[in-house]
Parts: sequence; structure tokens; C-alpha cells
Amino acid sequence: MVTAVAGGTRTPPGGPVLVYSKYDFDLDRFRRVLGEALPGVVLNYAGSPEEAAPYLADAEILYGWGFSAELLRRMPKLRWVQKMGAGVDDIIGTWPFGTKVLLTRTDGRLIATRMIEYVLAAILDKSLKLGVARAQQREQRWSYIAMGSIRELTIGIAGLGDIGAGIASSLAAFGAHVVGWRRSPAESEGVAELFVGDAGLEPFVSRCDVLVLVLPLTSDTSEIFDEKILMSLKPGAHVINVGRGGVLDEAGLLRAIETGAVSHATLDVFATEPLPQDHPFWTHPAISITPHVCGPLVPEDVAPHFVANFAAFTGGRPLRNTIDVARQY
Amino acid sequence: MVTAVAGGTRTPPGGPVLVYSKYDFDLDRFRRVLGEALPGVVLNYAGSPEEAAPYLADAEILYGWGFSAELLRRMPKLRWVQKMGAGVDDIIGTWPFGTKVLLTRTDGRLIATRMIEYVLAAILDKSLKLGVARAQQREQRWSYIAMGSIRELTIGIAGLGDIGAGIASSLAAFGAHVVGWRRSPAESEGVAELFVGDAGLEPFVSRCDVLVLVLPLTSDTSEIFDEKILMSLKPGAHVINVGRGGVLDEAGLLRAIETGAVSHATLDVFATEPLPQDHPFWTHPAISITPHVCGPLVPEDVAPHFVANFAAFTGGRPLRNTIDVARQY
Repeated sequence: MVTAVAGGTRTPPGGPVLVYSKYDFDLDRFRRVLGEALPGVVLNYAGSPEEAAPYLADAEILYGWGFSAELLRRMPKLRWVQKMGAGVDDIIGTWPFGTKVLLTRTDGRLIATRMIEYVLAAILDKSLKLGVARAQQREQRWSYIAMGSIRELTIGIAGLGDIGAGIASSLAAFGAHVVGWRRSPAESEGVAELFVGDAGLEPFVSRCDVLVLVLPLTSDTSEIFDEKILMSLKPGAHVINVGRGGVLDEAGLLRAIETGAVSHATLDVFATEPLPQDHPFWTHPAISITPHVCGPLVPEDVAPHFVANFAAFTGGRPLRNTIDVARQY
Repeated sequence: MVTAVAGGTRTPPGGPVLVYSKYDFDLDRFRRVLGEALPGVVLNYAGSPEEAAPYLADAEILYGWGFSAELLRRMPKLRWVQKMGAGVDDIIGTWPFGTKVLLTRTDGRLIATRMIEYVLAAILDKSLKLGVARAQQREQRWSYIAMGSIRELTIGIAGLGDIGAGIASSLAAFGAHVVGWRRSPAESEGVAELFVGDAGLEPFVSRCDVLVLVLPLTSDTSEIFDEKILMSLKPGAHVINVGRGGVLDEAGLLRAIETGAVSHATLDVFATEPLPQDHPFWTHPAISITPHVCGPLVPEDVAPHFVANFAAFTGGRPLRNTIDVARQY
């Protein structure tokens, strides 16, 4: 197809591209960054299926998140989808194209910064006993608090992809003893001891003062942290989930808190989001909730990844962070 | 003097030493660490002036904290005092010996670990808006929170001794833009821009999203952060004080919060400690209080410094971290 661009009528170098996000704020920023980085490329922006409708018939590339399989099925010319985020679990189960359309995701390291800060904040809040300090202030009570240090903790990272590895390195730099678990053996920076596969899961969790979940949600990881595994944690462990809610058995977590296997849970992700109004987590004193905010998309951080992949795509070179649709990640 | 030790009667290599701390818990741990590290040395332990009484006449060395000038005056043979902590402001004003008795303090780097963790936790709690998340959880409300990152902050460190420099390096490693202020010019690691002396104070604070106070209390630093300086902060700054309460004008801080110059204060130290029951800080929504706990003494961490200085003292070599009594630090 041809489109009028500055300099006359010619075939654009790639595209047309549909940029899709339900967040208006993000869209404005993507518009600015991509407009500068990809001059001459046809870039259309939409924040809803209605806004996207005029562009679906022609778009060859979709860069976005929060779209449905139904929207994808209305895009007959689609050749490549790049997720703005690092996960593809929201779309992989209903992916309608098999291997006919290329699927890529964003490099997790571009999203990891705030996740590392969130995990560190969650660990420090407990180890420094800042909740105790807040309670004492409410009671206007001056009483010594023996703060612990990250150096005294064994911290387990389940999931050692680009985000998990970044979290592991940061915590190791703070002097924590970092142990790791992953599904398949592979080298992992920042991890002092590595546990692998189903057989490694119980010995892994039995070591953890803090357990950080950074796993993608696939059919293999769904509720892999069930009641039995959670009961095997080092007693009084602090569980932090920044990956996907579905990897954790939520009823099992409540029972593990009851028995003392888990002393606290800091959760940014849940099996159902938004967390239902009547969910017991909301009012549980041993559970801290944030509304899936800790790996936020910063357009200025992630857009260069799309721009680089766009150059590879139009140049016929291999793209980075392609998804193996069969393996689901 | 001679004392019976294993192996017969001989002159001990140094001492006798009085080890003094008002914390029983600390004393037990010092007893274990020093007993192992200094075999043959006469080490007496006391947690109160009464417990110390039998040892005052003979002690040549005092290793401790929380003692008064009155106690010191009852020690006629005293040759060297090493503070267990990094500060000497509690004793320097009433120091009865001039330069006749050596005064040393503990290297702040041995105490810095938890202070770094505390400062980082205070910064993250605000930048990640975890207070907002806690409020939303209380209201059972799921609503997006745009978390900030340390990378976006300019953080000022006032006081670049061993502790301040450690905090600066850690925050710089997290991507913060770190600016520093000190009384006299000297190189400072981890600091991108250095401001010096009285003239540098106002330009320094005007740059700070976060201002971290790590200053010793001397006649020169008393209430140096007064209302005028606090009003010069970058509007909405977060003030963190982990040094000494007396460097901050507390009434001035309240007025700076009123005008919006300061959005929040995280305070571990106060002009009067314990913080008086009727102090307005207790119930102020923009002030977080901890009861002077963030630079705790860990006997296993700090005792080796005393042991090394003890070897230098008995061997006639110069000691580390000696105090210039006239300069007060």
C-alpha cells in the first residue's frame, strides 16, 4: 500500500503500525517518542477497540497491550505483534495465528528498575520493622526496635528471566544470600545457589527467609506455589509476588499464613485483577496489596526496543525477544 | 598492675579495660566477641554506674557508650576512651580530660549498613507511593498508582563522613543524581556535585528532591537547618534525618511543611530523645518517626575496630578514628 508522507508518495518502510494502549497517558508519550524515532512510518494510535476500528483492516504491525484475541482476528494483514510489556500470558492462550504471525515481547530489563525498587522496599519494610515503627508512632510510644539487615537474609528468587536476574543481582549487591529457582538449568548471575525443576522446588523454598516470585504464567507454572510448597517454606517467610498472580494458590497462601509458615505476603499481582471487592486479602493484616503497579511501562524506556525490532523487521533481520508460541514464553 | 590469667601471673598486654553499655543484650555479645579476640586481657563489663563502680579505680581503657562525664571523672588511671558508636556529641561538651586522655570513635562504615537500608527504605516508601497503596488497601480500593523511581530523583547528602559517603555511593548505584554538602572541601565518592560551607548550603538544598542529614552535632552544626534554609528546599522535598536531631530546627521544619517547602520528613533522631510525649511530631501526618534505631550497634560488626585499635594502643602505634577534641569530631 502507499501513503502520503513528507517528501511525496512512496511505500513506507514498514507498517502501517497500530499502537494500542488503554492508557491515554501512555499513548501521548508513545506518540512523541515513536513519532521522532520513526519518521515516515505510518503510526496510528488507539486506546479502545472503537478507536482502533479504522486501522484494523490495513495494519501490518501491532505494538501494544491490553488488546483481545477478537481484535487480533479483525486484523487480516497482521504480520507482527510486539507486546509493550514483558509478559504474553494475557494473549498466548487465545493467540489465533499459531506461527503465522510473529509475536515478540519487551525486554524485561527495560521494565525491571521499578520492580527491583518495589521488591527492595517490601523486604526493607519487614526487615527494618517499619510497620512496627508506624504502629508505635500511632500509639505515641518511644520503644527500641531491633532492626534487621538484608545481609542476614536468605532470599529466594523463583524465575530467573531478565527481570528475576536483575532482582537477584541487586539483592546480592546488598549482601543478601540469594538462592534461585528456575524450570530448566541455565547460568544465573547474582545467584549463589540454583535449584531446578519440580524436584528442586521444595528444597529451594525451605531455604528462604524471603521468597520472591517473578515467574511468567504458563500452563506449567499455574498455581505451582500450592499449599504443600508454601508449607515447606522456612517458617515465618515473607512471600513477595511481582510476576503473575496465577502462579500462587491464594487459598493455600491464607492457610500457610494461619500455620505460621508465612509471616507476611506482599502482593502486586493476583489470580483475578482487579482484586474482587470481597476477596479476603483486602483486610488481612499479614497481606500488603498494591494494584499491579510495580512493573509499570515507561514509554521512553520501552519504545527503543520496539524501534530496534522495527528496524530488524523491515531489514529482514531476526527480532529480539520472540515468543515460542508452543512454549508460551 | 598484675592479674592472674591463664598461664600464670604476668602484666597484661593492655588494660584493664572497662566495657560499658546500657544494653544487656549488647554486653553479652561483646563479652563473647572480645573474650575470643583478646585472650589474656582483663575485660570487665558493666551496664550501669553501679555495676561499673568496682572497676573505675583501675581501668586504663574504656570501651563503651552511654556513660556520663561524672563516670569518667571517677576513672583516675584512664588513658584511652573508645566510643562504641560513631558519634561523640553526647560526651564531647563535658569531656573532662582535654587532650590528656585519647578519645576515639568507631568507624561509621561499620555502622552504615542499616543506615543505608533505612534511608533507602524511606526514599522508596515515598517514591513508590507505598503510603498511598496502604491507604487504598484500607479503603479496599483498586486504583492505579504511578510509582516513581529513584533514578528520577536528585538526592542531597549533608555530611560526607564515612556514613554519608556510604549512603551517597549506594544511592548513586541505584541511579539517583547525588549532590553533597560538607563544611570543608574534600573529595567525596558517589557525589556528582559538591557544595561547601555556609555559602553552599542554600544552593545545595534548592537542588534536593530528597535531603538526607548525616551530620555530627557540634556547635557549628547546631540547628544549621533552620527555617530559612528549609524554605529554600526544592518545593515538596522529602527530609530524612539519620544523624543528630539537634542539626534541624524542629519548629522551622513544621513551618516548612505548612508552606509546602517540605512534603514529608522521616526522622530517626530528635533534639530531645526520647521524643517528648506532647511533641507535635508524633501525630503529624507528614512526619514518620522511628525511635533512634537506624544506626544500631552490632557488636560483631564494631568490636573488630576496637580490637585493632587496642593492638595499636598497646603496640605504641597511631589509633584510627581519633577525635580532635577542639574540633569536636
